[in-house]
Amino acid sequence: MIERRRVTDWWSTAVTEIHPGVIRLRGYPVEQLVGRITFAEQIWLMLRGELPTPVQGRLLEAALVAAVDHGPQAPSIAAARMAATCGVGLNSAVATGAGLLGDVHGGAGQQCMEVLARVVGGEDAGAVVADFRARRAYVPGFGHRFHPRDPRRDPLLALVGEAVERGEVPGHALAAGLAVEAALAEGRARPVPMNIDGATAIIYAELGFPPELGRGLFVLSRSVGILAHAWEETSSGSRIKGPIPRPLLAGYHGPPERDLPADR
Amino acid sequence: MIERRRVTDWWSTAVTEIHPGVIRLRGYPVEQLVGRITFAEQIWLMLRGELPTPVQGRLLEAALVAAVDHGPQAPSIAAARMAATCGVGLNSAVATGAGLLGDVHGGAGQQCMEVLARVVGGEDAGAVVADFRARRAYVPGFGHRFHPRDPRRDPLLALVGEAVERGEVPGHALAAGLAVEAALAEGRARPVPMNIDGATAIIYAELGFPPELGRGLFVLSRSVGILAHAWEETSSGSRIKGPIPRPLLAGYHGPPERDLPADR
Amino acid sequence: MIERRRVTDWWSTAVTEIHPGVIRLRGYPVEQLVGRITFAEQIWLMLRGELPTPVQGRLLEAALVAAVDHGPQAPSIAAARMAATCGVGLNSAVATGAGLLGDVHGGAGQQCMEVLARVVGGEDAGAVVADFRARRAYVPGFGHRFHPRDPRRDPLLALVGEAVERGEVPGHALAAGLAVEAALAEGRARPVPMNIDGATAIIYAELGFPPELGRGLFVLSRSVGILAHAWEETSSGSRIKGPIPRPLLAGYHGPPERDLPADR
Amino acid sequence: MIERRRVTDWWSTAVTEIHPGVIRLRGYPVEQLVGRITFAEQIWLMLRGELPTPVQGRLLEAALVAAVDHGPQAPSIAAARMAATCGVGLNSAVATGAGLLGDVHGGAGQQCMEVLARVVGGEDAGAVVADFRARRAYVPGFGHRFHPRDPRRDPLLALVGEAVERGEVPGHALAAGLAVEAALAEGRARPVPMNIDGATAIIYAELGFPPELGRGLFVLSRSVGILAHAWEETSSGSRIKGPIPRPLLAGYHGPPERDLPADR
Repeated sequence: MIERRRVTDWWSTAVTEIHPGVIRLRGYPVEQLVGRITFAEQIWLMLRGELPTPVQGRLLEAALVAAVDHGPQAPSIAAARMAATCGVGLNSAVATGAGLLGDVHGGAGQQCMEVLARVVGGEDAGAVVADFRARRAYVPGFGHRFHPRDPRRDPLLALVGEAVERGEVPGHALAAGLAVEAALAEGRARPVPMNIDGATAIIYAELGFPPELGRGLFVLSRSVGILAHAWEETSSGSRIKGPIPRPLLAGYHGPPERDLPADR
Repeated sequence: MIERRRVTDWWSTAVTEIHPGVIRLRGYPVEQLVGRITFAEQIWLMLRGELPTPVQGRLLEAALVAAVDHGPQAPSIAAARMAATCGVGLNSAVATGAGLLGDVHGGAGQQCMEVLARVVGGEDAGAVVADFRARRAYVPGFGHRFHPRDPRRDPLLALVGEAVERGEVPGHALAAGLAVEAALAEGRARPVPMNIDGATAIIYAELGFPPELGRGLFVLSRSVGILAHAWEETSSGSRIKGPIPRPLLAGYHGPPERDLPADR
Repeated sequence: MIERRRVTDWWSTAVTEIHPGVIRLRGYPVEQLVGRITFAEQIWLMLRGELPTPVQGRLLEAALVAAVDHGPQAPSIAAARMAATCGVGLNSAVATGAGLLGDVHGGAGQQCMEVLARVVGGEDAGAVVADFRARRAYVPGFGHRFHPRDPRRDPLLALVGEAVERGEVPGHALAAGLAVEAALAEGRARPVPMNIDGATAIIYAELGFPPELGRGLFVLSRSVGILAHAWEETSSGSRIKGPIPRPLLAGYHGPPERDLPADR
Repeated sequence: MIERRRVTDWWSTAVTEIHPGVIRLRGYPVEQLVGRITFAEQIWLMLRGELPTPVQGRLLEAALVAAVDHGPQAPSIAAARMAATCGVGLNSAVATGAGLLGDVHGGAGQQCMEVLARVVGGEDAGAVVADFRARRAYVPGFGHRFHPRDPRRDPLLALVGEAVERGEVPGHALAAGLAVEAALAEGRARPVPMNIDGATAIIYAELGFPPELGRGLFVLSRSVGILAHAWEETSSGSRIKGPIPRPLLAGYHGPPERDLPADR
C-alpha cells in the first residue's frame, strides 16, 4: 500500500482529476465547460486554477490574437515549414517551431516582464535603461529590427489603457512600460517604441501572470502561426525543403581540399 | 535581380505579409484584429484564410476547450512535466509534449475524420466497422480504455446537433459518426461510444477542416494542458524528475553480469 | 509489495542494470568497457545486446563515418543552425535537427533495407523496380538529386565487397543492391547509381540490423554533422538567424489588404 | 549577382563543401575518410576541423563509451521510451530524449568544465568549493545521488593519468579536478567523488574542447542509450505508454469538484 501511494503521489497534480467517466479541470467537470467558456478562458483556467473575469479573458484574448505570427523570416516558422516537408506529422512540425522559441527568439516577453517588475518594484525607469545601456544590451520588449513602430503596440496598449481607466486592472505595469519607453526616447531623434513583446508583457503583468508564463503564453499563441505555415507546406506537397532554392549552393569558407595523411 | 526573386519566392506564403510598420494576417491588418476577434477565430483565420461565421467560431471553440487535457498518465503530458525539470525553457517542454502527439497518441482524431469521410462518401458504416474488425483494429474515435463513456462526448455532440437542426452545418459527419457508433454497438452487451477524438472529428469535419488539421487542432488544444502541467513542475522546483520515485528502481531482465572477453 | 513489482516491471529493460556503485551495459560492467571497445562497438553492443566481431565493428564504423553530413542545404542541418541562434542549448539544436530526419528526409535507408529484404527474400529486382515505377515513385537508396554519382557509394561498397569475399558477411544484401542498381540502369542513357542511403542500407542489412535501426543509425551519424553545424553558429554569436539574409523578404501571394468587416 | 552572393554567404560554412560528385568534410574528400578513420575520430574532425592524434582519438572514444546510458530512471531515457510508443519515428524519439539534456539534466559536464577552467586559471580549489557551498549549490561533476562512488570515475581517470604521464596531454584539468575532489572531501566523513560528468569534463578539457561542446559530446554519447531504449519499446510493440502502469492513477491535490458559475 505504501508503494502505491508513493507512486501516485509522484505524479500528483492540481490541474486535472480523472476517474472512469469523470474529467475535472481545476475542479470543474469538463462537460460544464464545453460550450460555456472560450478557449482563451480555458487557457487562463488551466494555467491559473480559477476562471478569469470577462475583462481578464478579453485582455488575454487580445494578447494571444496579436502574437500569432510574423511571417517565414522567423527561424521558428522557417524551421517548422522545413520540418513539414521531411515526412514527420504536423505535431512534430509544431514541436520543431515551438522548440526554437528559446531565450533569444521567444524570451523577450518574459524578460520584459522582469524589467517591468523592477520598475513596479520601485526602481527608476531611467536607471534601468542606463543599466542595460551600460551592458550594451537591448532592453527586451522595446524596439524592432524590422518595424520602426510595431503595429501591434497601439491597439494592445489602448485595450490596457481602457481597462486601467475603468479600474479593471491595476495599471502599474502599463505605467512602468510607458516610463521605460519614455526613458529610452530621451535625447534621441528616433524613439525606441514598445514592440509586441513589450505590449503583451504589460498585459500579462497586469493580469498577474509570472514572467515564465509570459513565454508560455507566447508559445501557445505563436504555435498557431507555426501550424498555419507548416500546413501551407504540407498541403503544397513540397519535400525536403532546404533554406535556399536550387541551384543556389551554400558557400564554403573552410580549408581547401586536402588528402588524408597516408598513415591513417 | 533574378536571384532575389527566386529566393523570396522560395519562402513565399499566403499566410502573412509584412512590411516595415505593416503586418497583415490573411490580408487583415493585425491592428484591426486585436480586440475584435477571439483567439479561436484567429486560429480559424490563420488555418483557413477567411474569418469563420459566429457559429463556426463557437463550434471550433468548444472542440478546443474540450481536448486540453487528460492528466499526467498520458505520455505527452508526463514527458513535458519531466522536460520542465531538466533545465530547458517552457518552450522546450511544450515542444516535447507536442512532439509525442504522433499517429498513435495524437492521430485518432485525424484517422476518425478519414473514417467519417468514407461513410459520408457512401460506404456503409457497418461495412467500415467490419473492415476494422477483420484487421483486428480499433475504429479510431470510438471506445476509451479508461472511460466507459467519455464525458466529453455528449456536450460536444449536443452542440453539433443544435447547429445541424438550425441548418448551420450540413450534418453529414454527425450522421456518419452516429452510424458508426450504432454499428459498433450492434449485438454487443457493452456499447463502444464515441470518445473525444470521435466527437471533435465530427466537429472538425462539419466545419470543413481536412483530416491532417484535425491533428493540428488537437495539438493546439492539448498544448494548453501540456503547458499547465509543465508549469506545475517548474513552479514546484523539482529537478531531473524521472518516471518513478526513489527508492523504486527500474527492473532489469537482460543478460546477467559477465566479463568483457580478454581479447578486447 | 505487488505494487512495487508492477511499477519496476513497467520500466524493466534488458539494456542497462544499475545498482549503487554498479552500472552494467548489456551485462558488461561499464568499467571494463571504457578504454577497451570503440564507440562504434559500443553502439553495436547497446543496440544488439552482444559485442560485434572486429569485422562487424569496422563495417558499422565505415557507415557511421560516411553519413555524418551533407552541408547546410539539408533542412535538418539548416534548422539546427537556426535553433542554435535562438537561445536554446546545443542539446535542443541537436534535437531539432534529429527530429527532422523523418520518413522523407531520413527514412530512405530504412526503406531501402525493406527493398533489399524483398529481393533477398526472392523477389526479382527488375519486378521490384517496375513496381516502384508503376507508382511513379523513386526507389529509395538510388539516385541523388545533386550528385550524378554519390562519392560515398564506391568506398562503402568496396568495404562490403571485401568482407563478402572473405566470407565475413553473407553478401545477400550486396547482391540484392547491385541487382536493383542494374535493373534501374537497364535501357537508360544515365544510370541511377546507389546513394549513401543505399550503400549504408546494404551494410546495415549485411550486419543483420532491422530496417528501423537503419534509420536509428543514420540519426546517430547525422547528429555529428548537426552538432558541428549548430556549434559553428553558436560560436559565431549569431542571433535569431532566419532562412534568408536581410534585406531580402519572404514573398507573399495571399489575399490583398482588406478591412475587417464592421460587424466584428 | 550581388543577391546570389549574399544568400550563399548567409549559409556559408567551414564544415562541409559539396559540389556535384564531391563531398569534402573539413577539406578531406569523404571517400578518403571511409574505412580509414574511426567514428570517434570523425566526431573530432567535424567539431574541431583537424584530425586528432591517435591518443586524442582514444581518450575521446573512452569518454563517449562511458556515458552512453544510465538506465530508464533518467527522464531523457524515459521520455524517449514513451515517445517510441506514440506513433512517431525513432528520429523523433531520439530528438525527444536529446532535447531533455538541458542545463540541469545534461549540463553538469559543461558546468564542470567551467569550474575546472577557473582552477586551471589560478583560482584556489578550496575557494571555488567554498563559493559553491556559500550558494548552497552542488559542485557540478562531483557526487552522485545514486552511486556512493561512480564506477566510471576510476577507469576514465586512469586513462587520463597515463596520458599525462606520457606527456600526451597537459594534465592541468586533471590536476584541477583532483584538487576540487580533495577540497570537497576535506573534513567530511563521506567523500564526494567525481562522477561521470566530472571525469568526462576532465577528458574534454584536456583535449581542448570548449565547455559548450562538453554538453554537445554528452548529447552524442547519450543518444546511443536513448536510441537503444527507444528501440526496446518499439520492438516490444507497446502503445501510448504512460509513466505508470494501470491500474495506478496519478494522484490529485487540486480543488474539489465544483460547478461552473451560472453566469457563464
